[in-house]
Amino acid sequence: MLSQLRQKYKPAVPKILKTLKTITFEKKKHFPVKPEIRKLFSKTSDQPLLRGKKGSAQKFPMLKIGAVFSGGQAPGGHNVVTGLFDALQSLNPKSTLYGFLDGPSGVVDNKQIKLTASKLAPYRNQGGFDLLGSGRVKIETEAQLRGALKTAQDLKLDGLVVIGGDDSNTNAAVLAEYFLQKGCKTSVIGVPKTIDGDLQNEHVAISFGFDTATKIYSELIGNIGRDALSAKKYYHFIKLMGRSASHITLECALKTHPNLTLISEERLTLNQITGKICDLVQQRSKAGKNYGLILIPEGLIEHMPEMAVLMKELKEDKLSSSSKAVWELLPERVRQQLLLDRDPHGNINLSAVETEIVLIDAVEKELKKRKLQGKFSPLAHFFGYEGRAGLPTNFDANYCYALGQTAALLIAQGFTSYMAFIERLTGPVSEWTIGGMPLAALLEIKGRPVIGKTYVDLKGKPYLRLQKQAAKWALEDDYQCPGPAQFFGAATLTDTVPLIIRC
Amino acid sequence: MLSQLRQKYKPAVPKILKTLKTITFEKKKHFPVKPEIRKLFSKTSDQPLLRGKKGSAQKFPMLKIGAVFSGGQAPGGHNVVTGLFDALQSLNPKSTLYGFLDGPSGVVDNKQIKLTASKLAPYRNQGGFDLLGSGRVKIETEAQLRGALKTAQDLKLDGLVVIGGDDSNTNAAVLAEYFLQKGCKTSVIGVPKTIDGDLQNEHVAISFGFDTATKIYSELIGNIGRDALSAKKYYHFIKLMGRSASHITLECALKTHPNLTLISEERLTLNQITGKICDLVQQRSKAGKNYGLILIPEGLIEHMPEMAVLMKELKEDKLSSSSKAVWELLPERVRQQLLLDRDPHGNINLSAVETEIVLIDAVEKELKKRKLQGKFSPLAHFFGYEGRAGLPTNFDANYCYALGQTAALLIAQGFTSYMAFIERLTGPVSEWTIGGMPLAALLEIKGRPVIGKTYVDLKGKPYLRLQKQAAKWALEDDYQCPGPAQFFGAATLTDTVPLIIRC
Repeated sequence: MLSQLRQKYKPAVPKILKTLKTITFEKKKHFPVKPEIRKLFSKTSDQPLLRGKKGSAQKFPMLKIGAVFSGGQAPGGHNVVTGLFDALQSLNPKSTLYGFLDGPSGVVDNKQIKLTASKLAPYRNQGGFDLLGSGRVKIETEAQLRGALKTAQDLKLDGLVVIGGDDSNTNAAVLAEYFLQKGCKTSVIGVPKTIDGDLQNEHVAISFGFDTATKIYSELIGNIGRDALSAKKYYHFIKLMGRSASHITLECALKTHPNLTLISEERLTLNQITGKICDLVQQRSKAGKNYGLILIPEGLIEHMPEMAVLMKELKEDKLSSSSKAVWELLPERVRQQLLLDRDPHGNINLSAVETEIVLIDAVEKELKKRKLQGKFSPLAHFFGYEGRAGLPTNFDANYCYALGQTAALLIAQGFTSYMAFIERLTGPVSEWTIGGMPLAALLEIKGRPVIGKTYVDLKGKPYLRLQKQAAKWALEDDYQCPGPAQFFGAATLTDTVPLIIRC
Repeated sequence: MLSQLRQKYKPAVPKILKTLKTITFEKKKHFPVKPEIRKLFSKTSDQPLLRGKKGSAQKFPMLKIGAVFSGGQAPGGHNVVTGLFDALQSLNPKSTLYGFLDGPSGVVDNKQIKLTASKLAPYRNQGGFDLLGSGRVKIETEAQLRGALKTAQDLKLDGLVVIGGDDSNTNAAVLAEYFLQKGCKTSVIGVPKTIDGDLQNEHVAISFGFDTATKIYSELIGNIGRDALSAKKYYHFIKLMGRSASHITLECALKTHPNLTLISEERLTLNQITGKICDLVQQRSKAGKNYGLILIPEGLIEHMPEMAVLMKELKEDKLSSSSKAVWELLPERVRQQLLLDRDPHGNINLSAVETEIVLIDAVEKELKKRKLQGKFSPLAHFFGYEGRAGLPTNFDANYCYALGQTAALLIAQGFTSYMAFIERLTGPVSEWTIGGMPLAALLEIKGRPVIGKTYVDLKGKPYLRLQKQAAKWALEDDYQCPGPAQFFGAATLTDTVPLIIRC
């Protein structure tokens, strides 16, 4: 079976990472840290950018490191751990790698397992986080921070590697600062994970997992496009995971060429979006095409200006007249969802709101008004969970392995409060470079210190490329069928990188 | 890109099909035809089974053949056409292949295109039916039959190849008989297509498309299983296409090992199924597992004895007291669906009924009654359209190509009212054998003549294999991650066959 064969895959390793004992980190420019962050992160604010370079071989002491998965799964997570493990073994075979169980709560409560070569073997190049499990607990309260500190001290950890998204890397920064303030020598290193692709910065072109997830979704979208083109019966509304940013939808659109792609960051109103879809349906109908393919980011509804107001007013239980009008537009089933699915703070669980149902309903009403001549038969799909734990592509397998190795090196050389990064990802793996980005430099204050999400740049190349094709793809059917990810055969097939970082 | 590379793939060809001009068909046993069928199919009832065998080379006249896709897409359809085309070219290069557009209505209205090597090149080994389109029209009425006859005569067709499921092959039988009765020499040959796998008989182990579709679904199910195992938060209810028979669900279960697999053919009541799921949730909860993976065939609700009664009574608009009780069990949203989505005859469109929502709702209510200690967070998925037009696996690509070649040979040798078949599918392609099965022998009367569907045999090996593992898979998590279909590398990876025919 493929998954067993993949256990044997040896990730391609950048030249720089082939002789781990010889790598040192060059200290580059200091990053500006916001003054309000500097106050809160006094011990970790003045740090330079680090770049790995080849030096002379060093001897490394035995190291003890813990790794933890934080938040939703992303393909490749296991390879961060195997990269870490193999690097530790190579630096000093007496080193120990702990895996904390069920996410950050495992760090607080010191629930961990010792990782060995045989324990790791079945997880090499595999999807999921099931080696350790994951969790969404944050290490925030004083009690939680103390718990984590005690764990670090009890295990005599040299380092802790937090494999997570923006929130988890924020947490890593908090923890690194806390440890230093308490005189604890444990380094904390973050690794950029999230299929959403919204954790990007100057040195992190894309987080891991994005490539595999978007390839899985694109295979399915392409198949559905081909189905639409064959049956000529349905409008497929395909919602894709990604509540904050629309990178996944953008990447999938560039791969599959749907008739319409909605991007949350355009911040259109429900009316505008409805109008856009109805225009498309009418134009295509005139050309004899009563079918189509529309991509919708999961977070679309959250980004509609009037919906944001509605959500806020619903939480406060008083609707303005304009919100009442929006409310009237929503299908009954969605109104119920909005009222019922609230968290203890009254916040609405928007991921449970079926954006695609809202759109379909609004479009049906509007098309009736416009007296559409042709048929309009919509079908709704949602792709999310099937991509978060897929078998990592070569790109994610290699990328994660290198991230794990880099995290090990950063700890071995005593650095803390850094995010490991790999650069030159669009070139051959052998030429990839490694480094560390000071976490504090990524922080800003939004109520509390956070690493801001990166949204789709409406002036960026990937979005502009989509826009350039939009009119053509709307009417001509240029659906692409990328097919399933391949692991054997030509490198041009097996080792492609995401389009949004190649544009 | 993969789809372009696949255009170059040369399907593996059985030894027998390597020298087409030398193949003759041996007439084997006559099949018993039901007396009531014999009456309706007087010209096509007395036909023997045919088996291809190597003879001496013959000369073939120029042939004119038409091909039509009928019904829902199944991966491999394009290869039936290319197999047909290549065989015709090989028998006599002056032959002509027409492709009828948009399904059987293209035959009735004589809407077709002449197929050429360059027109076919981009469709080789590709999914979908978009070369020609498809449709669900049946050639049934006298006017339709006359239209088809006129088309056959106008184009001087030697043969018509109907690529379709049980209904379409029934149609092929009707058309073959009609043509003979009208003195028309056009042969009609059926090719067994349907991802549902419910078109099986003594000589047809499985219809084409099933392998690709179930591999696509199994990849996704495996990924979701891995996600469940990592997050440990959700019960995933995965509904799979297949309204009549549960072969798809059974195959996917054997490939992925979910905690519970529902099979429509078990004909359990909603209460029994709810009880089964609740038992599972409680047992797993006791073991600290508040997550799971449950497979549901799309047709489940139709096969629930009490639902069938309810549907009937709803259509007649009078509910018995027992049906009222069932009605009360259904969630409001589903009741609305049942009332609204009816066809012009008042029949309920059960495919629009969200079986998974019915189950989840019933399970939630029952778990409340049972006072479940742990959490129960269900998530619903439906996989269907993403599998119908996927890139055909090697199995489907080879199988379809051989079916197309066989159909061409049957026509070239003047046979009509046959279903082309390939046997020994579980062995190496080189050893596959070919033949023709008299369509009339497959017919039975159910109001009208039909080819009966093949359901999951509750005494058959595949189902028993599932049952044998059921208890183990329920509690131990043995989720398998088959990963995406591979097209390059070891044949043990790229050329596997469906498990239900290998059991």
